[in-house]
Amino acid sequence: MDKPIKAFVFDVYGTLFDVIAIKEQCEEVFPGHGEAISQTWRTKQVEYFMMRQLMGKYDTLYAVTRSALKYALEDEGLKSTDDIEQQLMDAYLHLPLYEESEAVLKQLQDHQLVVFSNGSHDMLDPLIENAGIKDLLDKAVSVDEIKQFKPAPAAYQYVLDQLNIERDEVLFMSSNGWDISGAKNFGFQTAWINRKEAPVEQLSLEPNYIFSDLNGLLKWK
Amino acid sequence: MDKPIKAFVFDVYGTLFDVIAIKEQCEEVFPGHGEAISQTWRTKQVEYFMMRQLMGKYDTLYAVTRSALKYALEDEGLKSTDDIEQQLMDAYLHLPLYEESEAVLKQLQDHQLVVFSNGSHDMLDPLIENAGIKDLLDKAVSVDEIKQFKPAPAAYQYVLDQLNIERDEVLFMSSNGWDISGAKNFGFQTAWINRKEAPVEQLSLEPNYIFSDLNGLLKWK
Repeated sequence: MDKPIKAFVFDVYGTLFDVIAIKEQCEEVFPGHGEAISQTWRTKQVEYFMMRQLMGKYDTLYAVTRSALKYALEDEGLKSTDDIEQQLMDAYLHLPLYEESEAVLKQLQDHQLVVFSNGSHDMLDPLIENAGIKDLLDKAVSVDEIKQFKPAPAAYQYVLDQLNIERDEVLFMSSNGWDISGAKNFGFQTAWINRKEAPVEQLSLEPNYIFSDLNGLLKWK
Repeated sequence: MDKPIKAFVFDVYGTLFDVIAIKEQCEEVFPGHGEAISQTWRTKQVEYFMMRQLMGKYDTLYAVTRSALKYALEDEGLKSTDDIEQQLMDAYLHLPLYEESEAVLKQLQDHQLVVFSNGSHDMLDPLIENAGIKDLLDKAVSVDEIKQFKPAPAAYQYVLDQLNIERDEVLFMSSNGWDISGAKNFGFQTAWINRKEAPVEQLSLEPNYIFSDLNGLLKWK
C-alpha cells in the first residue's frame, strides 16, 4: 500500500502555470508565426537543458530558454533583436495560473506545499510573486541551487533533502511526462497532470495517479 | 591551427543512411498518418534515450525505438499489433544509404573510417550488412558496448579509446545537432552534415565544419 503523503511538490511550467500565454506573445510580436515559434522554443528548451545535463555543462534555465528562443526565431527565418527577445522572455515572468491552481493550493494548506522547478530563481521568484501565491507555499526550490536539472536523480534528491521525510512520502505533480518519469524513477509517488490527454510515456515508469487537472488532488484535502 | 585528421568517425541514422524510408513505411501501413507517426517516433526516440541516460536506466536503442513507436502510434490514436510494430521496426534494418555515402567512403579509403552509433548491434550490423558497405569500414562501434548513449562524454571516450589517437585528431560527422554538440564538447573536431539547412544549435559548441552533404569530406581525400 502507498505510504501517506507528507508533502506535495509541484512542478511549475504547464503544471501550476499556463504556458499558453507564451504562444500568444509570440503571435503578437510575429503574426502568423506564434504557433511555430512557441513549439520550437519549448522543444529546444527541453532539449538544451537535457543536453547540458548530459554533457555536464550546466547553465541557468533563463540562459537556456533565451538560447532556445534564438534558435526558434532563426528556424522561422525571423530577424530578432535584443529588445524583441527580452519582450518574449518577459512572458515567462507573467504567466497566468491555471484556473484551479490557487483554489487547490488553498484547500491543501494543512499539508506541506513545495514548488520545485528547473527554472532559476530569476524566473521563478518573479512569477510566483506576480501570481500572488507566495504565501500559499512553504518553499520554492530551484534546481539552480544545486545546478542539476530534472530529470537527473540528483535534482529530486536535492528537494527531498529539504523535506525531512522519506522519498515515498512525497507526492510529485507535473504535466510533463519526462518529469513524472524522472520523479517516479527517483522514488517519489507521482501524479501526472495530463491536461492534454497524452499517452503515458513508454519508459516503464507509470505514474501512481493521473488527473486531468489539479482538482484531482482534492482527494487529499 | 586544427590538427591533421587521423580518423573519420561517422554517425549512422540521418548521416550515412537516409531515414526517409521510415516515414514511407509508416505511410504505407497507416495511410495519412506517415508524417505524424514518423515525426513523433523520432522525437520520442531521442527523448527516451536522453531520458534513460539522465536517469541511469540504460536500455538498447532497439528497445527504446520500439517503445517510442508504441507511444507514437498511441498518440495518433492507432491500434497496433506486435506484427505491425515488427514490420515498422524492420524498416530500420533496410534503410538506403544517401546517394553520395558509398562513393565518399570509397574515396576516403586511405584513412581510418569508423562508424559510431547509439544503435545497438542488433540494428547496426544488419543495416551495414544489407547496404554492402562493411568492407569500406575499419570498425562499427555501438554505444551498447559501454551502455552510455551519446551525447554523454563517456560514449565519445569509448570510441576514442579504440583509435589510439588524440581526441582532436578525430573528425566526427553527424547530421544531428545534439550529436555534433556532444562530440565537440568532448573535444573531437566536428563536421555537421546539415542536410536540412537548419540553424546551428545555440549551445556555444559550434561545429568546426558545416557541409550540406558528405561530399564536403572529399577535401581530405
